Amino acid sequence: MQAKRLSLALFLLILLFASNALPTRKVRTRKPCKSLVFYFHDIIFNGKNSKNATSAIVGAPVWANKTILAGQNHFGDLVVFDDPITLDNNLHSSPVGRAQGVYFYDSKSIFTAWLGFSFVFNSTQHKGSLNFAGADPLMNKTRDVSVIGGTGDFFMVRGVATLTTDAFEGEVYFRLRVDVNLYECW
Amino acid sequence: MQAKRLSLALFLLILLFASNALPTRKVRTRKPCKSLVFYFHDIIFNGKNSKNATSAIVGAPVWANKTILAGQNHFGDLVVFDDPITLDNNLHSSPVGRAQGVYFYDSKSIFTAWLGFSFVFNSTQHKGSLNFAGADPLMNKTRDVSVIGGTGDFFMVRGVATLTTDAFEGEVYFRLRVDVNLYECW
Amino acid sequence: MQAKRLSLALFLLILLFASNALPTRKVRTRKPCKSLVFYFHDIIFNGKNSKNATSAIVGAPVWANKTILAGQNHFGDLVVFDDPITLDNNLHSSPVGRAQGVYFYDSKSIFTAWLGFSFVFNSTQHKGSLNFAGADPLMNKTRDVSVIGGTGDFFMVRGVATLTTDAFEGEVYFRLRVDVNLYECW
Repeated sequence: MQAKRLSLALFLLILLFASNALPTRKVRTRKPCKSLVFYFHDIIFNGKNSKNATSAIVGAPVWANKTILAGQNHFGDLVVFDDPITLDNNLHSSPVGRAQGVYFYDSKSIFTAWLGFSFVFNSTQHKGSLNFAGADPLMNKTRDVSVIGGTGDFFMVRGVATLTTDAFEGEVYFRLRVDVNLYECW
Repeated sequence: MQAKRLSLALFLLILLFASNALPTRKVRTRKPCKSLVFYFHDIIFNGKNSKNATSAIVGAPVWANKTILAGQNHFGDLVVFDDPITLDNNLHSSPVGRAQGVYFYDSKSIFTAWLGFSFVFNSTQHKGSLNFAGADPLMNKTRDVSVIGGTGDFFMVRGVATLTTDAFEGEVYFRLRVDVNLYECW
Repeated sequence: MQAKRLSLALFLLILLFASNALPTRKVRTRKPCKSLVFYFHDIIFNGKNSKNATSAIVGAPVWANKTILAGQNHFGDLVVFDDPITLDNNLHSSPVGRAQGVYFYDSKSIFTAWLGFSFVFNSTQHKGSLNFAGADPLMNKTRDVSVIGGTGDFFMVRGVATLTTDAFEGEVYFRLRVDVNLYECW
């Protein structure tokens, strides 16, 4: 009897450790471990607004210049930015960080861009950074890009960020709403 | 006897929960959870092919121009692209999506590039995007870049993509075969 | 008695499998699975050093040129690089790989950059690549960027890299110390 019980215990213990040592493929949850909403505000340099501008064209195709966005859906224009991040949709709200990086318009036939950027936080709420990359087909109501990593408060996170164009004024100002949903938290 | 059995059960239960609550370092499988093969086709603008071109030089070093790829292994040329993705190696096959992003030649001494791009799918087979980043030492038969994230059908994936130059015509057209192997699927 | 023991075993078995099949949220360890230290050396082209230069400005705002770094904290300058990686802080040590990618200065008001690059190794110690992305606020003593993926010896890794400016000579040479800490190893 005693021996049987012992072998049962051993059997269960072996199973227990085996279950963690063998390659596993988890059923993962699609419920975010953290959700955050931010807005960021881009004012592109157009030759007249050097004081307010938060971004500038630094690359352009041979047929274009770096003061005015190019024709053909701005194809080839590459813009470097340092935009304020706010918690609401007001450009004049106190920023909680900066959205810093690059976007470029990469299609002649549709209005679409590609983004590589970071949210750099240095507020009482958040310290650290979130890093993003992905395609931004601007004409879609919402667009998903990847949260590819983070540091500080956002150490090692991964997730998906949903972008919405919250406002667009001429070709000088736009405001993006970013719904950050993290699915890997540490 | 009853007490002993109970304590055995409790002991096993505690172990069970401990095994999931404690920091773990899994032995992970290197068998892909998903494998896909695509081709994409890049036709770089050379001053004469504006109709067919899918990419253009938008950055170049001071000694070069933006119509012709620079000397010294094209060092410093930065190209923005929007290339059709096909399931076979035929440029004229019906595209299943677009490869959109940037590459730049980053060495004077060898022929090598760096890639940041997305596959944007909108076909019956796939909806969503895959995001890539990595070095592309072009003269190697195969080169590995990272799949750093995904959205839609490719929600939160990670993996490795192996690039092969499938064709190269002068300095205007190249075709890459991309073997996408995903090791994290959700 | 026999039946009771059997049902206990079954109960524990079910719990065991349930614990791996259900969505889980692990408490993850913040102890690196691998730590590495490297140095890389950037010599930016300034019109006179074409022989030694390892990087060049390839994008710049309309008010700047591509030979001299721009005013206003170099805002808008985009630099492509192919820098030697060494194991110590000596530029002339035998390189173990190349740091290849792009950085750009993205703020008018502070001295800060954004980095997208790879470490490409081809030495007896390491074969494969590490891919990085993130903000680099240069004036901070240390800055964290994300390790977003890897290939070869660094297959599928993730982590955080801490950058320190180890030396800075005029606006031509800088040396970065990179403490790579990987938290996901395969």
